[in-house]
Amino acid sequence: MTLLGFLDYAGVAVFAATGALSASRKELDVIGFLFLAAVTGIGGGTLRDLVLGSVPVFWVRDPGYVLVCAFVGVLVFFTAHLFESRYRLLIWLDAIGLSAYCVMGAAKGLAATGSPTVAIVTGTLTATFGGILRDIIAGEPSVLLRPEVYVTAALAGACVFTAATVFGLPLLVASAFGAATAFAIRGGALRFGWSFPRYNSRPGRSPEDVL
Amino acid sequence: MTLLGFLDYAGVAVFAATGALSASRKELDVIGFLFLAAVTGIGGGTLRDLVLGSVPVFWVRDPGYVLVCAFVGVLVFFTAHLFESRYRLLIWLDAIGLSAYCVMGAAKGLAATGSPTVAIVTGTLTATFGGILRDIIAGEPSVLLRPEVYVTAALAGACVFTAATVFGLPLLVASAFGAATAFAIRGGALRFGWSFPRYNSRPGRSPEDVL
Amino acid sequence: MTLLGFLDYAGVAVFAATGALSASRKELDVIGFLFLAAVTGIGGGTLRDLVLGSVPVFWVRDPGYVLVCAFVGVLVFFTAHLFESRYRLLIWLDAIGLSAYCVMGAAKGLAATGSPTVAIVTGTLTATFGGILRDIIAGEPSVLLRPEVYVTAALAGACVFTAATVFGLPLLVASAFGAATAFAIRGGALRFGWSFPRYNSRPGRSPEDVL
Repeated sequence: MTLLGFLDYAGVAVFAATGALSASRKELDVIGFLFLAAVTGIGGGTLRDLVLGSVPVFWVRDPGYVLVCAFVGVLVFFTAHLFESRYRLLIWLDAIGLSAYCVMGAAKGLAATGSPTVAIVTGTLTATFGGILRDIIAGEPSVLLRPEVYVTAALAGACVFTAATVFGLPLLVASAFGAATAFAIRGGALRFGWSFPRYNSRPGRSPEDVL
Repeated sequence: MTLLGFLDYAGVAVFAATGALSASRKELDVIGFLFLAAVTGIGGGTLRDLVLGSVPVFWVRDPGYVLVCAFVGVLVFFTAHLFESRYRLLIWLDAIGLSAYCVMGAAKGLAATGSPTVAIVTGTLTATFGGILRDIIAGEPSVLLRPEVYVTAALAGACVFTAATVFGLPLLVASAFGAATAFAIRGGALRFGWSFPRYNSRPGRSPEDVL
Repeated sequence: MTLLGFLDYAGVAVFAATGALSASRKELDVIGFLFLAAVTGIGGGTLRDLVLGSVPVFWVRDPGYVLVCAFVGVLVFFTAHLFESRYRLLIWLDAIGLSAYCVMGAAKGLAATGSPTVAIVTGTLTATFGGILRDIIAGEPSVLLRPEVYVTAALAGACVFTAATVFGLPLLVASAFGAATAFAIRGGALRFGWSFPRYNSRPGRSPEDVL
């Protein structure tokens, strides 16, 4: 298996685990675990393949990805109670998945179009969309709206990978740089509460007050 | 019209009715009924066609599906008050749509790829995605998070149809078996409160408590 | 640049601004502004291209659209505090984007398929989907559920444009008629509280009461 192939499977598996952990927080049954694991695991890559016109999408070409999600969903169903804090586990696995997927998404975008801008967008989109879908379907507040940097980590990882590749670094090195950048930023934000200045001039009013 | 063609129109029409009933619960205007009917009716099949690379999607090739949704939306706008419980009607029509669509989705997935795994996934996805979209857009709690089995019924119907087809049963028989399985499971869950053991080791804590 | 090209960029830019304003209401950081600007700006057109099978989608073929969104996101981050009511600005820009995009979506649907029904659907979908995505991701109540007509304006604009084109009017005239119709209806609804009779026979009961 190539490095990118490994990153792809790893990204799918850890995102699937976050979906299953989200199912555990909602106390779903085992099929609910499978479903949220699959949606989260393959959601980002599905959107990436669709916008690039790379159809049928990756898990239709290689159903092994779906089986990985199913396996992870069942595994988490039987082991989630072993972890002290399922939410902390979820959020750290999500950070790993984000790091793997921002590189994968940028690599596929660059290979398909040759455009660094597109590569950065598909990297960011692939890395964040699975988690967004998971939170929407599970009815959780979106990870995007939390104070720590999230999209920024994916964006930075995609930028570093793309720049390194454009400047001619080998794929292995560029991938490692990109994933390490994303993980360092997201991990630092989780560990030390890093955040950017947030927009905070005046609170928004509710729609009812305004119109 | 072939059997699969009929199942397809039937699935679109009853899902469209559930979308319109959801609009009635939100007290939207008649165009809101049309819109939610269309999104719910064609949402699952649209995702199925996109991931399989079968584009333009089915309702672009045959706009009759959209007209069916529009007709159903207007019909429900003028008749929904006749039903004692619009939510009960919604949830039972949703069960019928789920049964028709898990077979349709699996049949299209199998025809496009020959892979039973893909067929089961596209069957489950097609059957559940329209309802998920409906609940997200209408701001209702997702049917996925309710205690009765839901995804399980779609998954079981898709598995039975796929297995029957792989073992060489005629399409008509395999379709009937698949749809009956899904409807029996979902109907039994609604009627008798069937549910799987749910994950219930410790309640999840809110994000604010943990990080 | 052609008229349709201009309408397309204008639609993307004003929808991007509404996404960034939504980010300001959630007090996100500058990358959150970029992200919501991009999702809102290109979301509707992405769905349009996907269902029509026009892949890779428009912003993969021309990444300039993404750069416009990024520029608008940063601009709004630094200027949103200058506006008395960010929500009123958001909702009026959304009306402009809706008017531009219902014509664009209908024009692309008609060009791709020749079917007026498909053109009306892609016009309506393109005009409304970006705003739906924005509200879902930002966790705001959907603009669809507000009392003023919204989908209706997009639908009317798409119908007028399509009818004018089918009857042989020049593209420029048909586009102007379509966009003006949509803006007049949506603007009138916002200014004068126009609304259609809403479904209002009996209040819906909660799922818990019924099953």
